[in-house]
Amino acid sequence: MQQTISFNPRYIGQMITGTLGPDGSYSGKAARQWSSGKLRFYDDIPDTVEGLLKNEVDFCVVPVENSLEGSVTLTLDLLMEHQLKVVGEEIVQVKHLLLSKARREDVKIIMSHPQALSQCRRFIKTNFREAEVRPALSTSHAARLASESKDIAAIASREAAEKYGLDILAENIQDRNENFTRFIVIGKNTPPPTGNDKTSIIVYLEKNRPGALYEILGEFSGNGIDLTKIESRPTKKVLGDYLFYIDIKGHIDDGKIKETLGRIKNMVGMLKIIGSYPVAK
Amino acid sequence: MQQTISFNPRYIGQMITGTLGPDGSYSGKAARQWSSGKLRFYDDIPDTVEGLLKNEVDFCVVPVENSLEGSVTLTLDLLMEHQLKVVGEEIVQVKHLLLSKARREDVKIIMSHPQALSQCRRFIKTNFREAEVRPALSTSHAARLASESKDIAAIASREAAEKYGLDILAENIQDRNENFTRFIVIGKNTPPPTGNDKTSIIVYLEKNRPGALYEILGEFSGNGIDLTKIESRPTKKVLGDYLFYIDIKGHIDDGKIKETLGRIKNMVGMLKIIGSYPVAK
Repeated sequence: MQQTISFNPRYIGQMITGTLGPDGSYSGKAARQWSSGKLRFYDDIPDTVEGLLKNEVDFCVVPVENSLEGSVTLTLDLLMEHQLKVVGEEIVQVKHLLLSKARREDVKIIMSHPQALSQCRRFIKTNFREAEVRPALSTSHAARLASESKDIAAIASREAAEKYGLDILAENIQDRNENFTRFIVIGKNTPPPTGNDKTSIIVYLEKNRPGALYEILGEFSGNGIDLTKIESRPTKKVLGDYLFYIDIKGHIDDGKIKETLGRIKNMVGMLKIIGSYPVAK
Repeated sequence: MQQTISFNPRYIGQMITGTLGPDGSYSGKAARQWSSGKLRFYDDIPDTVEGLLKNEVDFCVVPVENSLEGSVTLTLDLLMEHQLKVVGEEIVQVKHLLLSKARREDVKIIMSHPQALSQCRRFIKTNFREAEVRPALSTSHAARLASESKDIAAIASREAAEKYGLDILAENIQDRNENFTRFIVIGKNTPPPTGNDKTSIIVYLEKNRPGALYEILGEFSGNGIDLTKIESRPTKKVLGDYLFYIDIKGHIDDGKIKETLGRIKNMVGMLKIIGSYPVAK
C-alpha cells in the first residue's frame, strides 16, 4: 500500500501537477484524471516540463500522441533532452465543439490550436467557407479569446465552454469520430511493477549500419518481449540521422526485460530508459 | 535523354508546379530548385495536393521532413490517402531572419509558422521577453502581415524580406544552426532509374503480431537492401495501431527490390508503393 500511495497522487491532496493551460484544455482534463490534487497551468509543453525540473510541481502531464495526428514531437524531444521519468499515462477522448459569444451567422474568425483546426478541416470548409481560420497556442487559449470577442468562435472542449461562458454553436465537429489523445505523466522516480506495465526507451543506432535496427528487434522478438510502438525522431544533427523511441510490454524490474536491455546497450550507440509505468486503462 | 526531359521540368518552361504560399516561403524555394517553370501558390498542404489531383498543376512540392522537427505528418497522411507518386526530392537549408517594418525596440508581436517559432524559441525568450508570440499559417504569410503593420515582426526567409520589403532586424536566429527541410515532388508517373534512387513504401502489419516488423526488416536485410528511414504513423482508427513508412535504397525496376517487395506484400495487411525517385544531391 505504501508504494501505491507514493505513486498515485490521487490520494495526496497536497501534490501539485503541472499541465498545459489555460484551464479548460484537454491537458487539464488528463491531469484531473491523474490527480485530485492542485493543478498549475503553463503556457506550453517546454514550460510545463521546466516547472517540474524547477520543482514547482511534483508531476507534469503533457500530450504525447493523438490517434489522428500521431506523436507530439516536442514531448518526445524533451524526454531525450532531460533526465526525466515517465511514471504514468492517461488517455482522453477528444470531442471538439464550436464555441462563441456570437451567433453562428456572425462568426468571422475561427480560432484553435493548429491540430484542432486540422481535425475539423472538413467542418470548417463546409460550414464556414468565408471565415478566417486563425491558429492559437491552445484550444483553451482560443476559447478565452473568443470570450472577449464578438466575432470569434473557438474550437475547444466542453470544459472550455463552461470555463469561459461560451455558447455551443456545434458539437462533435471533428472530421473523424475516433479521436483520442494519450498523455504521459512525468515525475522523477520509477513506480513499482503492477503486473501490467510498459517500458519506454530511446535508442541511437550507429549511423550507416542498416541492419542494426533488425538486430535490436531480433533481441526483443527472441526473448518474447512485445513491442507496442516504434517511432523515429531526428537526432537534430544531420538530416537522415535518427533516434528510435520504442515502447515494450513489461517493467524494467522484470529480469527478462533488464537482461535484454543490457545486451542491447552493448549493440547500440546509446540506450536511454525513460520509464516503466502502468498501462492506461 | 528523352527520359530525362520527361521527368525534369527544369527544361520545360511551360510546366506548372504547385507549392505552399504566399511567395517567399521555403516551399517556394524548393519548388524553384526543382523547376524553372511557373509556380502556383496554395494556402496549405492539402490544398496544394488537391491542386495536383484537379490537374491545375503538373507537379507539387511539399515539405516532408525537417532535421529538427521531424516529419511533416500531414504530407505523410496525404500520401496514404491518395493515389500519388513521389517523383523527386529537394533539400533546402532553413535560415530564419527577424523581419519587420518596425524598429527592434518597437516590436510588440512576433509572428511565424509554429515550427519556425519553436525553432527560434531561445532567441525570442532572450531578446523579446515581453513580445506576444503569435502563430501564423506560414512564414511568408507572417511576413506579409508584418509588411502591413507597425509593431509586428515576422520570422521568415531572406526571400520573404525581399518580397515584402521588410527590414532585417536579426539574421540566423534559429537555436540550432543545422536546419534543413526535405521536400518531396509529387507527380503522377514513376521516373526511370538513375542509378542512385530511393523507393518509399507504406506498410500495414496485422495488429497483435508483434514479430511482424522484425520479419519485414529481415527480408530487406537478408537481400542486402538498405533502409534509409522507418517511421510509424497512426492508422487513424484505433490509438496504438500504426502504419510504417519505409524508405529503401534502390528503384522499383531493380529485380531485387521488386521481388523482395513482392514477398513482403504476402506477409502484411497492406503494402503501398508511393514512389521510386532520384536521391537529392
